Amino acid sequence: MKQAVIFILDEYADWEASCIASRLNVNPEWQMKIASLQQGVCTSIGGFRTLVDCDLDEISQENVDLFILIGGNSWNIENKKLNSLIHQLLEQNILVAAICGAVDFLARHGHLKGYKHTGNALGVWKDYQGYKNHNDFLFQQVVVDKNLITANGTAAIEFSENILKLLNFSAENEIEKEHRLFSIGYYAYVEKYGNPFA
Amino acid sequence: MKQAVIFILDEYADWEASCIASRLNVNPEWQMKIASLQQGVCTSIGGFRTLVDCDLDEISQENVDLFILIGGNSWNIENKKLNSLIHQLLEQNILVAAICGAVDFLARHGHLKGYKHTGNALGVWKDYQGYKNHNDFLFQQVVVDKNLITANGTAAIEFSENILKLLNFSAENEIEKEHRLFSIGYYAYVEKYGNPFA
Repeated sequence: MKQAVIFILDEYADWEASCIASRLNVNPEWQMKIASLQQGVCTSIGGFRTLVDCDLDEISQENVDLFILIGGNSWNIENKKLNSLIHQLLEQNILVAAICGAVDFLARHGHLKGYKHTGNALGVWKDYQGYKNHNDFLFQQVVVDKNLITANGTAAIEFSENILKLLNFSAENEIEKEHRLFSIGYYAYVEKYGNPFA
Repeated sequence: MKQAVIFILDEYADWEASCIASRLNVNPEWQMKIASLQQGVCTSIGGFRTLVDCDLDEISQENVDLFILIGGNSWNIENKKLNSLIHQLLEQNILVAAICGAVDFLARHGHLKGYKHTGNALGVWKDYQGYKNHNDFLFQQVVVDKNLITANGTAAIEFSENILKLLNFSAENEIEKEHRLFSIGYYAYVEKYGNPFA
């Protein structure tokens, strides 16, 4: 069984987690857990109070195949354990995916070094001492480079699509189509590709 | 203070709630609650364990201005209290919004009578004894008719947009633009409308 961890903080962005979580959690080959800095409850921007399944002490490079960091309003934190975990996962070639405010955290702590990447706002990052590779910022919705996937906060569907493609979750063509259904909507999809449920 | 209730069941569809919840919950003029058949926890399709804020006994036409039913895999239920509540809200001209599987429930129990509407699958509904107005089904992403909004499960953003427009939540133009940012993504948005954060 492969292990995915979705890491959230208080005021996490509901919409950034929903697409990827609802793909991973229904696949019997994957076990998915919601993690945070500690056990308890994280409340989303949308007011959903989510029970945390595990804290940072329960996650290591031995038991994670995919580590997803969801954006939100609380990423201006300092946390040595989280930093150390992200460093180890990236070093061990484990897939790390970060979206929106979570990429700010990676930038601030130097984790984007050696990776092409994107994120919400290059302008803000210019003040970060840990962020030196401005030239690797790509102005696109999502960037995949080696074992790191980054995206801006309006790219939740592309974020999910690119994570699943990198995992060879199913046939690339199938992954594209099932995400297109949600990015363009049912009727536009039917016109372009035919009935998705036929 | 206006009151919004987002009603979920186990295996609710994460992506259908995320857009509208994250708009309503940040507006100081609105109080938003997550409701279900009973107190406790509802687990989403994506594996998020959500704490329920209130049960059906705490909701009535006196304390709800907007009642949103989120889709998912558990709508094949019978529940007199829920049926009666929906009936009362619609009768009292309170805004009811339902998406995906939740519209199946409305169809099955006759709540779509007198309303133009849409939903996931007209084909399934033909067997419902409570559903007589097939001719009022419109083949589009979302339908607004009087105080009822219905949508299919790929229309989460349009669903949110149309709810907020009907509420005069903010200027119509602003509502459209902020939803467009998420439906077409940041870079396509900038090209079409300019910098959303300028």
